[in-house]
Amino acid sequence: MKEIDLWQSEAREEAVSRPGALVRAAVAGATGYAGRELIRILSRHPGCKIVRLMSSGRDGRGTFPVQKSQPVLRGRTKLPCQPLKVEDLRAAEVDVAFLCTPHETSHDVVPELLARGLRVIDLSGAFRLKDSQNFARWYGFEHKAAPALSDAAYGIPELSPAEIRRARLVANPGCYATSIILALAPLLQAGWIDSRAGIIADSKSGASGAGRALSDKLHFAEVNENLRAYGLFNHRHVPEMLQALGLEENQFIFTPHLLPITRGILSTIYVRLVASGAPKRLEQVVGLFEGLYARSPMVRIYPPGALPEILAVAHTNFADLGFALDEPTGRLIIVSALDNLGKGAAGQAVQNMNLMFGFAEDMGLA
Amino acid sequence: MKEIDLWQSEAREEAVSRPGALVRAAVAGATGYAGRELIRILSRHPGCKIVRLMSSGRDGRGTFPVQKSQPVLRGRTKLPCQPLKVEDLRAAEVDVAFLCTPHETSHDVVPELLARGLRVIDLSGAFRLKDSQNFARWYGFEHKAAPALSDAAYGIPELSPAEIRRARLVANPGCYATSIILALAPLLQAGWIDSRAGIIADSKSGASGAGRALSDKLHFAEVNENLRAYGLFNHRHVPEMLQALGLEENQFIFTPHLLPITRGILSTIYVRLVASGAPKRLEQVVGLFEGLYARSPMVRIYPPGALPEILAVAHTNFADLGFALDEPTGRLIIVSALDNLGKGAAGQAVQNMNLMFGFAEDMGLA
Amino acid sequence: MKEIDLWQSEAREEAVSRPGALVRAAVAGATGYAGRELIRILSRHPGCKIVRLMSSGRDGRGTFPVQKSQPVLRGRTKLPCQPLKVEDLRAAEVDVAFLCTPHETSHDVVPELLARGLRVIDLSGAFRLKDSQNFARWYGFEHKAAPALSDAAYGIPELSPAEIRRARLVANPGCYATSIILALAPLLQAGWIDSRAGIIADSKSGASGAGRALSDKLHFAEVNENLRAYGLFNHRHVPEMLQALGLEENQFIFTPHLLPITRGILSTIYVRLVASGAPKRLEQVVGLFEGLYARSPMVRIYPPGALPEILAVAHTNFADLGFALDEPTGRLIIVSALDNLGKGAAGQAVQNMNLMFGFAEDMGLA
Amino acid sequence: MKEIDLWQSEAREEAVSRPGALVRAAVAGATGYAGRELIRILSRHPGCKIVRLMSSGRDGRGTFPVQKSQPVLRGRTKLPCQPLKVEDLRAAEVDVAFLCTPHETSHDVVPELLARGLRVIDLSGAFRLKDSQNFARWYGFEHKAAPALSDAAYGIPELSPAEIRRARLVANPGCYATSIILALAPLLQAGWIDSRAGIIADSKSGASGAGRALSDKLHFAEVNENLRAYGLFNHRHVPEMLQALGLEENQFIFTPHLLPITRGILSTIYVRLVASGAPKRLEQVVGLFEGLYARSPMVRIYPPGALPEILAVAHTNFADLGFALDEPTGRLIIVSALDNLGKGAAGQAVQNMNLMFGFAEDMGLA
Repeated sequence: MKEIDLWQSEAREEAVSRPGALVRAAVAGATGYAGRELIRILSRHPGCKIVRLMSSGRDGRGTFPVQKSQPVLRGRTKLPCQPLKVEDLRAAEVDVAFLCTPHETSHDVVPELLARGLRVIDLSGAFRLKDSQNFARWYGFEHKAAPALSDAAYGIPELSPAEIRRARLVANPGCYATSIILALAPLLQAGWIDSRAGIIADSKSGASGAGRALSDKLHFAEVNENLRAYGLFNHRHVPEMLQALGLEENQFIFTPHLLPITRGILSTIYVRLVASGAPKRLEQVVGLFEGLYARSPMVRIYPPGALPEILAVAHTNFADLGFALDEPTGRLIIVSALDNLGKGAAGQAVQNMNLMFGFAEDMGLA
Repeated sequence: MKEIDLWQSEAREEAVSRPGALVRAAVAGATGYAGRELIRILSRHPGCKIVRLMSSGRDGRGTFPVQKSQPVLRGRTKLPCQPLKVEDLRAAEVDVAFLCTPHETSHDVVPELLARGLRVIDLSGAFRLKDSQNFARWYGFEHKAAPALSDAAYGIPELSPAEIRRARLVANPGCYATSIILALAPLLQAGWIDSRAGIIADSKSGASGAGRALSDKLHFAEVNENLRAYGLFNHRHVPEMLQALGLEENQFIFTPHLLPITRGILSTIYVRLVASGAPKRLEQVVGLFEGLYARSPMVRIYPPGALPEILAVAHTNFADLGFALDEPTGRLIIVSALDNLGKGAAGQAVQNMNLMFGFAEDMGLA
Repeated sequence: MKEIDLWQSEAREEAVSRPGALVRAAVAGATGYAGRELIRILSRHPGCKIVRLMSSGRDGRGTFPVQKSQPVLRGRTKLPCQPLKVEDLRAAEVDVAFLCTPHETSHDVVPELLARGLRVIDLSGAFRLKDSQNFARWYGFEHKAAPALSDAAYGIPELSPAEIRRARLVANPGCYATSIILALAPLLQAGWIDSRAGIIADSKSGASGAGRALSDKLHFAEVNENLRAYGLFNHRHVPEMLQALGLEENQFIFTPHLLPITRGILSTIYVRLVASGAPKRLEQVVGLFEGLYARSPMVRIYPPGALPEILAVAHTNFADLGFALDEPTGRLIIVSALDNLGKGAAGQAVQNMNLMFGFAEDMGLA
Repeated sequence: MKEIDLWQSEAREEAVSRPGALVRAAVAGATGYAGRELIRILSRHPGCKIVRLMSSGRDGRGTFPVQKSQPVLRGRTKLPCQPLKVEDLRAAEVDVAFLCTPHETSHDVVPELLARGLRVIDLSGAFRLKDSQNFARWYGFEHKAAPALSDAAYGIPELSPAEIRRARLVANPGCYATSIILALAPLLQAGWIDSRAGIIADSKSGASGAGRALSDKLHFAEVNENLRAYGLFNHRHVPEMLQALGLEENQFIFTPHLLPITRGILSTIYVRLVASGAPKRLEQVVGLFEGLYARSPMVRIYPPGALPEILAVAHTNFADLGFALDEPTGRLIIVSALDNLGKGAAGQAVQNMNLMFGFAEDMGLA
């Protein structure tokens, strides 16, 4: 699998050009759910100041109070929401741009933003895949920004901290992908999983993960008191998981389900440990994770007998991991939980910003 | 107040022209929530047969399997859903047309359907108000079918059974209106309420009451874990309540709220009993309701100390009424519960059909 | 695997001793969720009459109105709820006893009820396992009614209709088990599944499946906006599934999850088709199920491209099955949905009664 | 009505005896919902340090990891939860004790804690009513701590900041009470409400407001998809509202309802403005509130046309107020929203602590 710069000790680079000053952030996509959460977090982040809110303008509105679209932001910011125009963003005024925009919009504006000297954290999928050929199949558009693609850091702070710290562009991972990669990377890196036996990730996500765009599938009465599977053998987060984990498509099944809750993902992951070379006892599996994530404040490893649940991570930036092992057969179940808007989107974006600008990794994150 | 033909003993008219035969029903608006529930009820009604499903065609689709839009109807009907065309409906083939269509559509097609000899049960608001002048203010269109308007029976079976039995056109009441009228009509008729002191109905409804049309207010994540009031001093169901109850606008406040549930309405209604002429004890209030609704199988009166709740009426055609009286002051609270898709829409429509065609009032209703 | 008397043509036995009369049913466990649903269904079943409601008396109450515990049953029955005493049940007055009682209670009373000449449908787990030795491990008590155990029919009407028709005792299957057995039995019987590759059933259930007993795990605020896995490698429904499907414990993983909904189960089941002997195309898999369940009115098979969801089965007795196949690799996902109180408990119990007493299989079931 | 020390300018007293040091807080009742939220807030409060967690010991447990009862607190505190013993609390080690304990427990321990020199913020109802005679009727126990009662400050920071700053004991108000008092106090103080016409507060609360104790009324399946009214003319929060607002019992109706959500209260409040002396236009009403709460960072006043909803306040410490006025008649509806665990309990407790120890009023509150 891909070499991961896990938990390296490294020199803290000089990240902020204006020492002592607040990082100035612009947020594009301020009217969606990830944008809302991002603004909420940044508005009380001690090292950061929001200087501009923008919306991709698909709604045809000009400048308007962001509270009109996001009542929960009353009292948190006085900035209006403006149309997204790249030419309005100058490195002299903005240090970092967060993009909570559609994939195609991000694809279009990122190269220009980089050229203008801004650092960018993109929450869309537009820069997550290294191979530009993959976008046509999974995202339905041809990718024309290969240079940015190869420079982009795939932003899971626990797995690639050094790369993220020096990145000009961070591709913030998908919510499902984060919950599954954090659960599998340590085991795959240790060589403990029998990949040929197949890895199955059965994930369940709250409805905010689908975004705020109108859809008859997301009407309250269609989601409430319901559960449905979707995207079988065909979900957009698959290629970024294969890429990060070094797996082949025929070794991995990912099945997402839509839960009748607003926030949270729980992934139940089924693997088989290799017959020789892997440990036989649950405590050893837990120990591997405790060791590897020991310096990661946002990952919580559960002891044998306890399992994560969505309630423990909702409205937080934690990713929780718990385990059950059928010791005689080596069948291992990993339960992974996080908040799709927190560690799965806006929270992780801020965690990435913290690395990029030299802050403590969990600053401003609950 | 308006004279109500409550609980009159009356001769059962010869309702069905073809004795012994099943009533043949057409349903327009088959892709919405009221349409779905209506088809579900009618598909197992022992005296009725669905002969045609239609959609108002706003979605631009031609004929398609209704299960495509309504998976829950798999195995319940083999009829396709066709575009609504009045000329397809002939009295020789259809006895009754149920309209779960937008107000404007109902307004347009009802006169033609009546002219073609069909009986009509309209679940929209287009024929609920006697005064055609009221439509411009409350519904935003000019009403041009005054004759049908004056012939229409306002269809609460418990309150106007005789009128409904002989009606060619029944205007099926609003869901909120039903829950409130059933609670207030007996008291107002008895002259026990001090209307000048003001009547306040604070209602809470599940999201299916808002229909299936797309709206950013009805996205799952906007309704879930939320409650919001709307339509203050300005809701479309007000005029039909004033009309049915004989009240003035300044005597009545109605405040609807959107609940994070799919089905059900609970109305909490505040009135003051008149100082003289009304009883002083809770048991007497309960007794009035028990007497007046004694022959109404779908209304359940709760004894002192017990109160209705939505769970007891959801997925049923019951309307439940309970009471709390502050005996020293005569302040009375009535709690009224029903299922907005059942007694508040499709169930009540079938109850009306039962009266119109000589069936037992609760036939086919759970 | 075990021989299953699937879809046999067989003579309708003379089931009802008193032709034309209503089947007289007693319900024990009337204060729980399965009991509530059973009473609701039976109260409008055209071939049945409830003659006695009982509660196991653990709550220390004597005789009381069942509505006190079950407001939704107002207006549906006038029978009080009495303490469960076997000596009150006589074959001259009761044809069939439904037991919605704790496992231990069912274990204790079933032999006596059979001895008194009643037929019994037991919704607990007390008679589901053929090997009495299994009860100590999975249910925590020693089984002392081996004769009844060997006579009991495991009651999935689609799979063992003949056995159920002649049974004196039907062990009504577990809700999870029903959803999984209906999905796997046809494939295993056809020899299409590679069992050694492992079968994984990832199930999600609404909270009513856990029963009505108090538990801090079932407090509203602990279930709402949450999802949690439980019983990993150790759930009580496993042995009945292994038994019905002829599988070994190391070939099968079952992981239940608690959903924040009241009613419904969705099972996502992962299998691998055998390399030779199994078809390669999805249509062929669907065709197998369509053929085998063609005469089963309560099982709905979805065409390629459509998948079951809980909303389509909640408040019904349907079991829905849909499929996705990765044709190059033979990896098959089956999505199975049913209502845990309907087809997963009370509905299936009535379906079993229908077979036992010669009624149409779906009589009284929506 | 009672004189309220609204918005007085006052000298900031020297609140913290050890300047620069962190306030040391003990939390009793750490296993409940208010306790959980309090620990969550305090664990990241920049001016405070939790030094002891306790549980009232009713559960018979000794010392245990608080995460066992509260998984969400993993990674937030390393303190164990100990039995509540007053003798363990010394002023030399603890500056303030938060009590999230049952009313009776608070009643018993508060006098001792004060005697030992601690400051106390009590989240129970035990010290909210000035007249000790009232406790027998509303709380079911005889109050024997009259001196503490008369010293206690009723802790709504927006209404009694000076009193709270100097208090040794703060009685943290009820959740419903806070939502209603904040909405009515300005109008009553201005003399704009016609109290004789009656004031009606129809409130709806999420289930966490009922606490974590087991109850069959709080089982998930009893709350979900339901709404029920309770405590009609008889709820424990009434006397503290009458006391704070200077109203008589016969002028006020309060009806709480249980919502199927975890967090949040929405109160819909109906009043009539006095015919002379009150303004006629909605903008004037809004202006009164904007003026009075101008220096209150946690109260948000909505402009005409916008209304609060629970989603905008959940997981925050904000109290939101919006208004609709029927200008011809003076009938005014106030919609008040807050989070029952935030501004309605733990958040307000921290806000009170902030005043008591000289911090910014909203420090550590989101």
